[in-house]
Amino acid sequence: MNKKFKVGVLGATGMVGQNYLKLLQNHPWFEVVYLAASPNSAGKKYAEAVAGRWHMADNLPEAYKDIIVEDASNIAKAAGKCSIMFSAVEMDKKDIVALEAGYAAAGFAVVSNNSAHRHTEDVPMMIPEINEGHLAIIPIQRKNRGWKEGLLAVKPNCSIQSYMLPIYALIKAGYPISQMIVTTLQAVSGAGYPGPASIDMIDNIIPYIGGEEEKSEIEPAKILGKISGDKIVPDKDIKISAHCNRVPVSDGHTACCSLKFAGKKPEPAEVIKIWRNFSATPQELKLPSAPVPPIIYRDEVNQPQPRTDRNAGNGMAVTVGRLRPCNVFDIRFVGLHHNTNRGAAGGAILTAELLAAKGYIK
Amino acid sequence: MNKKFKVGVLGATGMVGQNYLKLLQNHPWFEVVYLAASPNSAGKKYAEAVAGRWHMADNLPEAYKDIIVEDASNIAKAAGKCSIMFSAVEMDKKDIVALEAGYAAAGFAVVSNNSAHRHTEDVPMMIPEINEGHLAIIPIQRKNRGWKEGLLAVKPNCSIQSYMLPIYALIKAGYPISQMIVTTLQAVSGAGYPGPASIDMIDNIIPYIGGEEEKSEIEPAKILGKISGDKIVPDKDIKISAHCNRVPVSDGHTACCSLKFAGKKPEPAEVIKIWRNFSATPQELKLPSAPVPPIIYRDEVNQPQPRTDRNAGNGMAVTVGRLRPCNVFDIRFVGLHHNTNRGAAGGAILTAELLAAKGYIK
Amino acid sequence: MNKKFKVGVLGATGMVGQNYLKLLQNHPWFEVVYLAASPNSAGKKYAEAVAGRWHMADNLPEAYKDIIVEDASNIAKAAGKCSIMFSAVEMDKKDIVALEAGYAAAGFAVVSNNSAHRHTEDVPMMIPEINEGHLAIIPIQRKNRGWKEGLLAVKPNCSIQSYMLPIYALIKAGYPISQMIVTTLQAVSGAGYPGPASIDMIDNIIPYIGGEEEKSEIEPAKILGKISGDKIVPDKDIKISAHCNRVPVSDGHTACCSLKFAGKKPEPAEVIKIWRNFSATPQELKLPSAPVPPIIYRDEVNQPQPRTDRNAGNGMAVTVGRLRPCNVFDIRFVGLHHNTNRGAAGGAILTAELLAAKGYIK
Amino acid sequence: MNKKFKVGVLGATGMVGQNYLKLLQNHPWFEVVYLAASPNSAGKKYAEAVAGRWHMADNLPEAYKDIIVEDASNIAKAAGKCSIMFSAVEMDKKDIVALEAGYAAAGFAVVSNNSAHRHTEDVPMMIPEINEGHLAIIPIQRKNRGWKEGLLAVKPNCSIQSYMLPIYALIKAGYPISQMIVTTLQAVSGAGYPGPASIDMIDNIIPYIGGEEEKSEIEPAKILGKISGDKIVPDKDIKISAHCNRVPVSDGHTACCSLKFAGKKPEPAEVIKIWRNFSATPQELKLPSAPVPPIIYRDEVNQPQPRTDRNAGNGMAVTVGRLRPCNVFDIRFVGLHHNTNRGAAGGAILTAELLAAKGYIK
Repeated sequence: MNKKFKVGVLGATGMVGQNYLKLLQNHPWFEVVYLAASPNSAGKKYAEAVAGRWHMADNLPEAYKDIIVEDASNIAKAAGKCSIMFSAVEMDKKDIVALEAGYAAAGFAVVSNNSAHRHTEDVPMMIPEINEGHLAIIPIQRKNRGWKEGLLAVKPNCSIQSYMLPIYALIKAGYPISQMIVTTLQAVSGAGYPGPASIDMIDNIIPYIGGEEEKSEIEPAKILGKISGDKIVPDKDIKISAHCNRVPVSDGHTACCSLKFAGKKPEPAEVIKIWRNFSATPQELKLPSAPVPPIIYRDEVNQPQPRTDRNAGNGMAVTVGRLRPCNVFDIRFVGLHHNTNRGAAGGAILTAELLAAKGYIK
Repeated sequence: MNKKFKVGVLGATGMVGQNYLKLLQNHPWFEVVYLAASPNSAGKKYAEAVAGRWHMADNLPEAYKDIIVEDASNIAKAAGKCSIMFSAVEMDKKDIVALEAGYAAAGFAVVSNNSAHRHTEDVPMMIPEINEGHLAIIPIQRKNRGWKEGLLAVKPNCSIQSYMLPIYALIKAGYPISQMIVTTLQAVSGAGYPGPASIDMIDNIIPYIGGEEEKSEIEPAKILGKISGDKIVPDKDIKISAHCNRVPVSDGHTACCSLKFAGKKPEPAEVIKIWRNFSATPQELKLPSAPVPPIIYRDEVNQPQPRTDRNAGNGMAVTVGRLRPCNVFDIRFVGLHHNTNRGAAGGAILTAELLAAKGYIK
Repeated sequence: MNKKFKVGVLGATGMVGQNYLKLLQNHPWFEVVYLAASPNSAGKKYAEAVAGRWHMADNLPEAYKDIIVEDASNIAKAAGKCSIMFSAVEMDKKDIVALEAGYAAAGFAVVSNNSAHRHTEDVPMMIPEINEGHLAIIPIQRKNRGWKEGLLAVKPNCSIQSYMLPIYALIKAGYPISQMIVTTLQAVSGAGYPGPASIDMIDNIIPYIGGEEEKSEIEPAKILGKISGDKIVPDKDIKISAHCNRVPVSDGHTACCSLKFAGKKPEPAEVIKIWRNFSATPQELKLPSAPVPPIIYRDEVNQPQPRTDRNAGNGMAVTVGRLRPCNVFDIRFVGLHHNTNRGAAGGAILTAELLAAKGYIK
Repeated sequence: MNKKFKVGVLGATGMVGQNYLKLLQNHPWFEVVYLAASPNSAGKKYAEAVAGRWHMADNLPEAYKDIIVEDASNIAKAAGKCSIMFSAVEMDKKDIVALEAGYAAAGFAVVSNNSAHRHTEDVPMMIPEINEGHLAIIPIQRKNRGWKEGLLAVKPNCSIQSYMLPIYALIKAGYPISQMIVTTLQAVSGAGYPGPASIDMIDNIIPYIGGEEEKSEIEPAKILGKISGDKIVPDKDIKISAHCNRVPVSDGHTACCSLKFAGKKPEPAEVIKIWRNFSATPQELKLPSAPVPPIIYRDEVNQPQPRTDRNAGNGMAVTVGRLRPCNVFDIRFVGLHHNTNRGAAGGAILTAELLAAKGYIK
């Protein structure tokens, strides 16, 4: 990239918004110039707006302190300020649907963390290593909606990345999967701030996360789907059952997976080879946030673990281990990823990088 | 019971041994009179032998302090002192096999926590609510081995109780199960003392427990098996795949289960009714440690949890929740039990109570 | 007691209110007959009012489920229903001051957990083992305010019990204290529900609790004070400096204390003897919640600890250990108590028991 | 530096040894070329020697994998291989005293993490920002012992850095301190591996760390001492009393400090200014590991905290907060540092950098 794209963050004062800002510091292609949030924060300097509620481990970067926060609902205000808008607004679903479409209509490339548009048929739900091809829906989206330059793309829920890259690598290598039963052990940061009360997470686990199992089961089908006519049609072949648990871990979601192949079954050595050799468009295009390699397989019998593996590939790699035969299905393994990086803001940034590299953003 | 049975504990200084002593305080049928451990501890008063390593939450009960610890390998020493011997010795498997059989040959009713004899064909592996009928192997065992009064019974691994009672209740009600995939989130007390290092359990989970998955998959088959000729023949119909994880919880194992029925499938309301109405021989005989009810079903969407449910039924009940359809199999649920009580010493004591009530102990 | 006193709980749906109900189950002197809370809950059965927010480890007791919750601000409604009113309302200080006085004016013996009246000069702030004598202010309070039968007593903040009993025992034995520097490590339950976010309590401590250091420094002076004329005059002799920290512990506050004596200094053996022999009016009157002994001294070098000592004396004893000389002052020690039991609802119940035994309640 | 110094690590397979290797990756002045450990590990490649017990969060760096581990007790083997030897051997004190002196006699600049030589009178115990002047003992040490090029320096215990920099900054600014009472909340990594059992650190704190309070009280006196004749004479003016606790935190020691000044007392604003302006020789010499600034003062009322502040200055800065008057002494504050970085390996590396910059190492 010769020039830097100017970017904005909607919902900049929330946890995901803060994560975007943390990850976008020193980004080689993107420069944060616009911050917007709720009317409460509008008009304040960013440092004031987040005083007492900056939750990142490192201190608030100087570069953001004096930016005046705008009202996220005022689309006109952002006109001409930036070309990419990362959305992490917290509103009712209906309002998010309208607001994000409004920014896209106004010419912004909107990349959203929200679930509101995940099942909108002409909006791609991106894991860039898997469904880069879904970007071909963008011209259709623009045509459907009469947009000239704007676009709308979303990232999926943070619970699924631990297994989506590993299973996609197998599918791509010619081993389609028919059934998967997965149990996730999810970090508290996935619930935003404040998230679970500490009294509920000391010496305890909570075997329930509202809405998470449904998302974990439905979103993969769209990601593995195909464009047909003017929409993305979900894959029908894979059936997933998810058990989602909240555990006393700060960052890093772990997934225990049992898989059944639809047809032929690879040998274990072949599976590991497929994972270790897996590479995709983000790696080929050398996107700034693309982890190399995207999938790390660890040989140690007791890995991956959140503390030791969540930061692999700058928090963008998926670490896999414990491949073994399954007594009921075909294979079992454990996958792990960083839920607020690969699973949230980092995944959205990688999507924006792909959009930029592919020429979708002016 | 009119009289109290005198009991001994082998391996009395270890974690499981300490748990036996804690649970046997004020037991209405059993009186602890004999403690044995390794030669290091032999000859010392119990209070001295465990000085600095009594790990129970409550202080060492006065009643045990002055008992002189004997050498567990000296079977002759125990002669005439007691009729029941709880075994929690820590030795090589071969040595445990021989030692426990030696005590039984010497006339003791040996009830063991160890895995050494779990797959010995004429030794019952007991969950008293499930396989009370396996006690019929005792006369055969005595005949096989030329024992007059002694006997040998074992309890299974602590990882399986969260699901064994719930699935057995369904089987007994006419809904046999063909396949189960289960992920356990196991407490650190299951690893004995010191168990996992704290640095590995702060902000972390370990997705591996050596040998645990194999035990979780194989032991249920024997418990659900039938006596045929002079041995217990494991059930062949149920296939189990287990993912075992260590989580930062002190006590209480949680299991996330997906089940496939072999034949007809009960409605959800029927499943809950079966669980809530389940009762078995220990409850009918009013054994002192038998929980009433043995299975508790909680309606709250986010239960059971270790902190709130592990002590249900004095740590002997299994608490179940989150019954829902499975996208891949038939039903899903979460089970929870107290691993060092129902899952270890408490389960062995309940077995001894059943043996006593049924007249197997003199 | 021949008859049971009927009692009510104001703020019955909050965390402290729930704790009262848990501790008052099966109380030999008190019977809960009246529950009141905010207008939101008024008119509902208690089980409905706390649906999804009953935070005690054990399930909601059956006895409370069908009690209709009243509006706490409606004093007339409570008339004739009970004689003791435990207050755990959550309102602005001004409103609590008025409401609690209102209930007392209406004839109720009000025992409050709130800080609102702690420094009202004719209201005793009770730790029954220490300042039983302050109950002599009750007739004065009634006279001052024109109350016939009602009364108002409060308990102090939950941070101070770990050291107040140990230092009072020394003062009473003839060793007055001039200076104390104390650092507390406080459990999250002390912050109510939800309290600290789990993300802030995983792999972390927070070295600050709003208002806690001030309370920890000022309240002891009143408790150690004397009645003079128509008010309680705080002790001026002891100076306390407190550092209060929140740590990832569910229940149990720990205090590291360094003390300087005002005059003669006891030998260590004498200090331990004083603590172990300490007994006071609640023990002599055999009040139902009075721990015997009130102070437990542990000889082990690494005790007391929250997990092993918080439940001592049914959560009402204070456990002390690590007595040693201080390099700067005279002695150092560690104290520990259960913050939601001795430190909150249990302490208030003990106060009500003392009031009842002393004939202050009709 | 034009050339890189070659360095070795004694005790390279232990936790501190591993930390040295982690921190010395890509060091601009030092190149690790020699690894030694116990005879068990000798002869193995480093990757084999630590297989299954590499405890750093990041994977074992490639550069170390194939280095053959030598026997640390064989000093001759190291001859000519390197000029600096970092010692983290685990042996009896007597053996460490002899071994480290042996390496120094053989010409190595030995910088040790061990406590063995901390009170040897001609061995400097270094916190480079404080007692750079103590390096003047090196020529005396060489003369005392007949060493030509070798030298021996040690770093102090990991518990004291949180307060030593802040109090030294005040002393240096003309505000000597007469008394300090400090309570530390120490991370489990300070205990090495495995350290405390997880069952003792879940929902718990341990108010005792063997030997830690004594070290925390005695070591500051030597660090603040002066060279007199042929030895370092400890400062007599400051009296410290320490309460040391183990808390469920992975890395990062917190200290709650109350200070009394010996003479005039600075205003709070002056104290903060002194801390913020503090700089010392390591900063002036731009030593690679020297944090700039060395002391960070945070204005937020609830900082510093381990999760947010331990990595400040690459884990080498000390973060201070909560400055306020003390009711008993003069001021109170909270200090925090990274115990395995600034408090252990990082502190030793900074000392070696200072020795190199000052020309003590050939």
